[in-house]
Amino acid sequence: MNANNYIPKEPETIECNIEKTLDVIGGKWAFLVIRELFCGTKRFGELQRLIPAVSPRALTSTLRHLEEKGVLERQVFPTVPVTVEYTLTPKGEDLHAILKQMKLWAAKWT
Amino acid sequence: MNANNYIPKEPETIECNIEKTLDVIGGKWAFLVIRELFCGTKRFGELQRLIPAVSPRALTSTLRHLEEKGVLERQVFPTVPVTVEYTLTPKGEDLHAILKQMKLWAAKWT
Repeated sequence: MNANNYIPKEPETIECNIEKTLDVIGGKWAFLVIRELFCGTKRFGELQRLIPAVSPRALTSTLRHLEEKGVLERQVFPTVPVTVEYTLTPKGEDLHAILKQMKLWAAKWT
Repeated sequence: MNANNYIPKEPETIECNIEKTLDVIGGKWAFLVIRELFCGTKRFGELQRLIPAVSPRALTSTLRHLEEKGVLERQVFPTVPVTVEYTLTPKGEDLHAILKQMKLWAAKWT
């Protein structure tokens, strides 16, 4: 095989990339949490107040999911009671363009 | 209340817009179908061949969902057997920017 035999990227790979993104923001609460964190670091209780519809359990599970995906960082402070803060990583902040496009699309068409 | 009492858009409305978009593209197969239709009108059988992992039943349900959401149009031709073609509407074509951003994000970060 010589260098001129260009092998294009498999369609599956491209589709897979969209799937990977949906896996991060596609959950019921994930994009709501991400959206709040665009405005800056938040404590658990603040997120709970900002998204009253989410149960503490679902919020915990969403935050863990987003931490595993590397879109937010969790910082624990040894206060009494313990303080836990959540901040978007650069990877998380970079989701801004997607959410903005989604907002614009829905505003235009729905 | 006078005209200076500016009432900002409720956060719920904005969140809701993102949710509306996710409702359209967030399913397991929806974005794969939309992606194929960006390349032009397709028949049911063509879509089935292009996305071999989807069952005929799931493909039917996905196409119906996308038709209900107004992102694609279904056209039936009275051939034997019947020919059914699917085409993106302008609303569907406008999803391009979102899927592109999602692809770019995943390519950069995953």
